[in-house]
Formats: sequence, structure tokens, C-alpha cells
Amino acid sequence: MSETKKTNIILFSGDYDKAMAAYIIANGAAAYDHEVTIFHTFWGLNALRKEENIQVKKSFVEKMFGKMMPRGANKMGISKMNFAGFGPKMIKDVMKKHNAMPLPDLIEMAQEQEINLVACTMTMDLLGLQKEELLDEIEYAGVAAYLADAEEGNVNLFI
Amino acid sequence: MSETKKTNIILFSGDYDKAMAAYIIANGAAAYDHEVTIFHTFWGLNALRKEENIQVKKSFVEKMFGKMMPRGANKMGISKMNFAGFGPKMIKDVMKKHNAMPLPDLIEMAQEQEINLVACTMTMDLLGLQKEELLDEIEYAGVAAYLADAEEGNVNLFI
Amino acid sequence: MSETKKTNIILFSGDYDKAMAAYIIANGAAAYDHEVTIFHTFWGLNALRKEENIQVKKSFVEKMFGKMMPRGANKMGISKMNFAGFGPKMIKDVMKKHNAMPLPDLIEMAQEQEINLVACTMTMDLLGLQKEELLDEIEYAGVAAYLADAEEGNVNLFI
Repeated sequence: MSETKKTNIILFSGDYDKAMAAYIIANGAAAYDHEVTIFHTFWGLNALRKEENIQVKKSFVEKMFGKMMPRGANKMGISKMNFAGFGPKMIKDVMKKHNAMPLPDLIEMAQEQEINLVACTMTMDLLGLQKEELLDEIEYAGVAAYLADAEEGNVNLFI
Repeated sequence: MSETKKTNIILFSGDYDKAMAAYIIANGAAAYDHEVTIFHTFWGLNALRKEENIQVKKSFVEKMFGKMMPRGANKMGISKMNFAGFGPKMIKDVMKKHNAMPLPDLIEMAQEQEINLVACTMTMDLLGLQKEELLDEIEYAGVAAYLADAEEGNVNLFI
Repeated sequence: MSETKKTNIILFSGDYDKAMAAYIIANGAAAYDHEVTIFHTFWGLNALRKEENIQVKKSFVEKMFGKMMPRGANKMGISKMNFAGFGPKMIKDVMKKHNAMPLPDLIEMAQEQEINLVACTMTMDLLGLQKEELLDEIEYAGVAAYLADAEEGNVNLFI
């Protein structure tokens, strides 16, 4: 087959290390000419948040969600942080030492490689996140769009 | 290809939000005429438990498992509850406000759409769960049945 | 199609129960003549660590990682241990009672069935793990090798 291969990743997790894994696989697949989509849902949406505090009109509960969730990739925690006792800082130090790309750089690279970064509109609604708060040049879609991609996908992952 | 597309989801997680994601994808896929199976294993079995306390003969350890695990979808916790400090109640309030279907309704919808809800017999054994304790009209199978479905699947996810 | 079916599992998680699920699916798929690969990355690498303390030269931070992470499959924790209050010991007791294979035996069986056990070299680097510390007869590769397998895979899972 000479068709373009397709990789579709659902990023559900809001953990720094899991998001790193998602973006490393996605960037790898794009480098091998796959058509790649990362569908950000639930806590995975936090990877797409802008770092600065954007003023938008929100209800009280939406404001609370907004404050409690990390604002952008750089603020996300590690899935094993509490279990093993080391924090995001330690892993970021190690990454720096090994010249591994931090998550915000991996996301920028994904955009340069024209990976489709999609924000799930249903969970944006639930968590009270608005387009102004998310990175520019991302797409907005729901589960129907995900399924249309995934049913043609060669590599489908839920992270 | 005019063949029916197949979506197979392993629901391993016992988190309310992850189970919601599983059931939203499953219901979406069924609406697009996929043949859909959710294979519930380990903590994912809790989504299939009846709410009421069913009297069955159990060993001491099985009774302990039975008490410690949530009895049914409505009792399940949120994967990020401790991390971000907000509880299941808060997310359920938001869902209500947005008219999003709570998990028990998503499960009922899945049954109406004839999604195959399968309970993993091996982990039922391990956790001491018996058929009487689980919802009616679900199927019972092991890893061999899962693999037979998955090897023909278009969308395979582990949640 | 008479082609060999392929199952590719990314084991990212360092939880005993999730690793068990990965190895049960993998061993099942191998029994059904799939070509099976488990790609161990991040905390999933701990499943491949030898139990004994291997003396290798490490930096201070690498030594800390080495001490904090579980040394081998038998030392890994359970994903739901803190949530529900029961520990690895309890689940291992139940497994013994039901003659379910503990994780180290599942890994041994995977090696006997010629499942490809791959360690992700990039995360070995990050976590300061060296080949001497991991089981014998495993392979070493990066994301490119994973993608080459996965794009031909029938069952691709991220666990």
C-alpha cells in the first residue's frame, strides 16, 4: 500500500510524562510521514492552555476549575510524582542534562510538523475552558470527528 | 470496504472520568454503525456492579474486596480527584448543568445500542465478583474472546 | 488473509496490575500465533529490572532514580492501592489462591513464547538505567522501531 499511514492519539491524561510520551510518538510518526492527530480531551486539554491568565467570563465553578487545573504544558505534574517521591523539577533537570526536549518544545515541534492538535469541545464545555485560553492554531471537534479519523487509523492509542 | 467497522475497548480503569470517556467513544461508534465491544477487566468491572448489596457466598478476602470497591458506576471516583482537589460531586454538578449524561445513563444507552458489554471472567474470579452482583444482560468471556474481536478491530483502545 | 497478526503493546505504566494486564494480553496473543512486542518505556521499564542491586557507574540523580523506582516486577505497586486501601500483598494472596500467575512468571512465559521484550533506550537514558540492570535477552530500541511495528499492527495498545 502506498497510502499515507495514520496515527490518532487520544490524550486524556493531564500528566507531564504521559503527555511527553504522546508527543514523542506523534512527532516520530509525523517524521515517518504519518498523518497524525492528537485529540485532547478531559485533563489532556491542559497541555493546550496558554500560560498567561486570559480574562474570560466564567461561572464560579468554571473559575474554580480554571484555577485548579495546570495552566499549560509546563505546569503539569508527573503521574508517578507522589508514588516515588520525586517531582516534576527532578525529571526536568534530568531531561535538560540529556538534551531531551521539554513538553512545550515537543508541542511546538508538533505544530511545525503539521500534526493536527484537536481540542474536544464537549470536555471544554464541561471544564469551562474557552478558545481564548488555548493555544492558537488548534482545531475544535467532537467524538464524531475522532471516530472518523480513528476508523481509518493504523495506530490508535488512548493515553 | 463495505464491511462493518469494529471498535473494541478494554476498560481496565475504575475511574469515573475514564469510564465516561470509554462509554462516550463506544456510544459514538455505535451511532456510526460500528460493532462495539467494551471488555471490562480489573477495576473496570466496578462499572458493571449493581448498586444494591447482593448476598452471595464469599471468602473473607472476597468480602473485603467487595466492600472496598465502588458498587456501580455512580460510586466511582475521579482519576484526578486528589491531584487537583475537586471531587466527583463537583464534576457531576457541572455535567448536570451542561446536560451531559452521567455514567449510569451512558451505560444504559450502550445497552440500548446493543454494545457488547463483557465482563472478564478471570478478574471476576480474582476480585471475588459473581454474576449475581453485575448488571443483567452482560456477557462473560476471557482474553481469548477479546483477542478474537480485537484482531479484526478498526479502533482498539485500552482505557 | 493468512498473514501473521501483530500485537504491539506500549507498557508505560509501572503498576503491577497494569503490567499484569499487558502480559496476560501479550501471552494470549502469542498463544494465538500473533507476533507480539511489548515496548517498555518510562515506568514500564521497571518490570524488566533485575531484582539484585547491580553495581554500575551512575550520577547522583541517576542513583536516586535507581533507589526510588521498584527493582523488578515483584516490587511494583498496584494502581489502585491507595485509592481503595488494599496493598500488593493482598492481591498477590488472592492470585496465589486462584493459581493466577504472578507477574514475574508471566514475564518468563513471555520470554519462552518469544515475545519481543523491548526497552526504550531514550527513557533508559533519562532514568539512568543501564543494560546490566535489566533482564537478559531483551531488545533495545527507540520510537522509530516501535512505529515500524505498530503501523503494521492489528492490535496496538498503550498501557
